[in-house]
Amino acid sequence: MDAGKVNGQETRQDPDGGALLRRAAELDAADPLAPYRDLFIGTDTPLSYLDGNSLGRPLKRTPQDISDFIRDSWGGRLIRGWDEEWLELPHTIGDQLGRAVLGAAPGQTVIADSTTVVLYKLIRAAVAAVGDTERTEIVLDTDNFPTDRYLVEGIAREEGLTLRWIESDPSSGVSVAQVREATGPATAVVLLSHVAYRSGFLADLEAITAAVHDAGAVVVWDLCHSAGSVEIDLDGAGVDFAAGCTYKYLNGGPGSPAFAYVNSRHLPGLQQPIWGWMGRKDSFEMAAGYEPAPGIRSFLSGTPAIFGMLAMRGTLDLIEEAGMAAIREKSFKLTGFAVELFEAWLEPLGVRLTSPRDPQQRGSHITVDHPAFRDVTAELWEQDVIPDFRAPQGIRIGLSPLSTSFEEVHRGVAAIRERLEGRGFDNPRGMPVN
Amino acid sequence: MDAGKVNGQETRQDPDGGALLRRAAELDAADPLAPYRDLFIGTDTPLSYLDGNSLGRPLKRTPQDISDFIRDSWGGRLIRGWDEEWLELPHTIGDQLGRAVLGAAPGQTVIADSTTVVLYKLIRAAVAAVGDTERTEIVLDTDNFPTDRYLVEGIAREEGLTLRWIESDPSSGVSVAQVREATGPATAVVLLSHVAYRSGFLADLEAITAAVHDAGAVVVWDLCHSAGSVEIDLDGAGVDFAAGCTYKYLNGGPGSPAFAYVNSRHLPGLQQPIWGWMGRKDSFEMAAGYEPAPGIRSFLSGTPAIFGMLAMRGTLDLIEEAGMAAIREKSFKLTGFAVELFEAWLEPLGVRLTSPRDPQQRGSHITVDHPAFRDVTAELWEQDVIPDFRAPQGIRIGLSPLSTSFEEVHRGVAAIRERLEGRGFDNPRGMPVN
Repeated sequence: MDAGKVNGQETRQDPDGGALLRRAAELDAADPLAPYRDLFIGTDTPLSYLDGNSLGRPLKRTPQDISDFIRDSWGGRLIRGWDEEWLELPHTIGDQLGRAVLGAAPGQTVIADSTTVVLYKLIRAAVAAVGDTERTEIVLDTDNFPTDRYLVEGIAREEGLTLRWIESDPSSGVSVAQVREATGPATAVVLLSHVAYRSGFLADLEAITAAVHDAGAVVVWDLCHSAGSVEIDLDGAGVDFAAGCTYKYLNGGPGSPAFAYVNSRHLPGLQQPIWGWMGRKDSFEMAAGYEPAPGIRSFLSGTPAIFGMLAMRGTLDLIEEAGMAAIREKSFKLTGFAVELFEAWLEPLGVRLTSPRDPQQRGSHITVDHPAFRDVTAELWEQDVIPDFRAPQGIRIGLSPLSTSFEEVHRGVAAIRERLEGRGFDNPRGMPVN
Repeated sequence: MDAGKVNGQETRQDPDGGALLRRAAELDAADPLAPYRDLFIGTDTPLSYLDGNSLGRPLKRTPQDISDFIRDSWGGRLIRGWDEEWLELPHTIGDQLGRAVLGAAPGQTVIADSTTVVLYKLIRAAVAAVGDTERTEIVLDTDNFPTDRYLVEGIAREEGLTLRWIESDPSSGVSVAQVREATGPATAVVLLSHVAYRSGFLADLEAITAAVHDAGAVVVWDLCHSAGSVEIDLDGAGVDFAAGCTYKYLNGGPGSPAFAYVNSRHLPGLQQPIWGWMGRKDSFEMAAGYEPAPGIRSFLSGTPAIFGMLAMRGTLDLIEEAGMAAIREKSFKLTGFAVELFEAWLEPLGVRLTSPRDPQQRGSHITVDHPAFRDVTAELWEQDVIPDFRAPQGIRIGLSPLSTSFEEVHRGVAAIRERLEGRGFDNPRGMPVN
C-alpha cells in the first residue's frame, strides 16, 4: 500500500503520516458488517456522515419500496389496504422491532405518533398505573433530552405533581446510586434516557429499573439513542414502559413515527389519555362510548402513519440478519476508533472529550467540545462532512454501525482537525478550553 | 354513439336503456375539471373508486416526488435538510392549506400529529382559552365522528367536565337551532363536524360559530370531511379552532399527518398540553425549562412527520390552480348525479337515502342504506368497485371532485344495483327496510 495514499485518499497531511488511515483500512477489511454499508444511499460518495444517530441514511431499496407502495398498495388497493394489511402494521412492525431490537415478546410494542406524544401518553399511563396519591414525584435528570424535560413540566402542572431532578454529569450520565438516592416513598415515575443524547453515556438499564422498583415506583425509558445501536432486553430487565424514535438507527426517515413499549403486566387496565377510534374495541363499528381495545392496541389514538412506517422495515430486516450483538460489537470499535483519532489529533488542539472513555459505558456516539465548534460545524457541512452540533460548543460524532465505515470516521475527524488547524490557533480566540 | 355501448361499456343491462350512461358521458364532456382526473393513479383502469373521502387516490407524480425526496433530500442533504427546509414545512404547507382550502391567513395553520392528537390538543387548548370554571360543559352531537366522541369522554373525565349531547338526525345533522338550545352560560366548548361523516350533511359553520360565540363559548370544528371538497372561510366566520385530516380530499396518503388551525386571537397565551421540543422557543438551544415558541409554532410537540407531508403538496398545488369554487361546483354535480342514479335504480330496490336531498346541504358524499350492504360491499370490493361501508348497513359513496368522473359514478352505482338484483330479491332476507 502506497504510504501517501490509502483508498485514494491523500495521507501526507496527516500528522501521523497515514498510520491512522491505514488502521482505518485494516478495521474496514476485518469488519464482518462492512457489506451492509453498500446497501445505503450515498455511501459511494466522498460524504462523511457522522450523524446517523440523529437521522439515519436511507437504504438504496427505500425509494423503490416506497414507489411500489404508492402505486400498488395505496394506489391499487386504496381503502382496502387498511383491512388487508395497514391496520395491523403498527403491531407487525412493533413486534418485529421488539424481537430484533428491544428484547420484547410480541404484543407489547406498537409504532405510533411522535416520540413526544408517545412519551406523553406513557408517562400519563405510568402515573395512572402507580395510582397512589401519596406518590407525587416524577424523577428525571437535568441532562435528559429536552422534549422529555419539557413534557414532564407540563404533565406535573396538569397532574399536580412535582419534579425531582437528578443532577447528571454532562460528560457521563445518571448512576444507579443517584437513582437510589432520588427515589423513595414519594416517587411515582422515573423517566430516564438509556443513552444520553449529548455524552453518549449508557445507563445501567437493568440495575436502575431494579432500583426504581425497589422504591415502589415505575420507570419509563427513552430509548431514542439506544434502539438499534445497543443490545436491549426490556422483558428481561422487567422494564415498565419505554419509547423511542425510528429515524435514527432504524432509518425510518425524517419524522417517521415513534414506538411505544408497555410491559404486558401493565396492559390490563392501561390508561392513556388520548382516547381515539384506533384504540377502541371494534373501531369500525363506530359505536357509542369509549371502550379500550384489548392489549397494546388501546395505546393507539389516531390513524396510524402508514406512509411513515414503511422505510424502517428494510432496516429491521437487516438488523435481524446481522444481529444486535454484532452491531454492538462494531459500535464499540467505531466509537473506540473515533476516540483514538480524538486523542491523536484533537486533544492536542485543546478539544475535550465529554463522553465516557470506557466503551462499555457509552452508546454509539461521542461528543467533543471546543469553543470554535459552532462555526466549525457550519463549515464542515459545506464540505459534506456532517457531524451534529450541540449547543453550546459540542460536536457530536454519531456512528451508525450498519452504514458507517472506519475510513469515513477517519475522513470526518481529519476534516474537524483541518478546520481547527486552518484557523491558525490551537486555542481559538484565546478562550479558556475547560 | 352506439346506444348499446358508451365509452366501451355495455349499457343493455341498464334498466334505463343507457340513458343515464349517456348523461354521465355528457356531464364528463362538459366538466371543466375533467383533465385533473388523468393526473391520478388508477383512473385509466376499470376500477370505480367511490371512497376518495376516506382515502384519496395518489397523484401520478407522487411516486417520483417521493423517490426524489428520499434520494436527494433525505439521502443527499441528510440532517442538513432540517435547517434547510423541513423544520418550516409544517408552516409552509399549513399556510398553503390555509390559503387554498381553509380561508385562513398565514400563521394560523400547521401540519402535525394525527387528527385525534390534534383534536386532543385543540380541545384542551379551547378549555384553557375559556378559562372560566363556571363553564363546565363540552357540547357535541351524537353522530359526530367516533374519535371526536371518544376523545371528549376522556378529556371530560380528566378535566372534571360534563358532556352535553345534541341528538343529531343521522340522515342530516346539527341545526343552528339545536346549537342555540344546547349552549348557554355553562358551555365551555362546542365540538362539531363541518360535514357529517355518515350523512354528508353540511353544517352551517358561520351561523353555528356565531351561536356559540353568543353563548360566550368557543367552537372547535372538525373539517375532516370538508377540507378540499367544500368552500371554507375560517377567518371570515371567526372560527376559534379547527382540525382535519389530509388523507381524504388532500391525497396525503394513508395516515398522513393532520392539520390544526388556531385563530390568531387565541395564539397569545395558547395552552396546549403536550410540551415538546418542537413547540419550544429556540428548540435547538435545548435549554432548561419550557417556554412556548411564538405563534402557532407552540402548537407543535414532536418531530414533524416530514415523510408523510410530501404527497399532499401536489394536491394543494392543483387546488390552488382549479380553485375551491370550481371544485365545489363539481362536487354538487357529482353527488347530484349519484342521487339521480339512486332514485332511478336503488330506491325501487328498497334502498334508502340517508343524506340530504338538497345539494346545498351536503358535502361530497352520500350514504344509502340497505340490510344487505355489508355483504354487498365485500362483493363489490372483490370486483374493483370501492365504496365504503358504514355500520350497521350503509354504503357511503364518496366523490372526490378532482379525481372522480361521472362515468365512474355510473359504473359504481350500476354495480351496486347489479349486486342487489343478483341476490334475486329487492327486499333481501325478507327484512324490513326502514
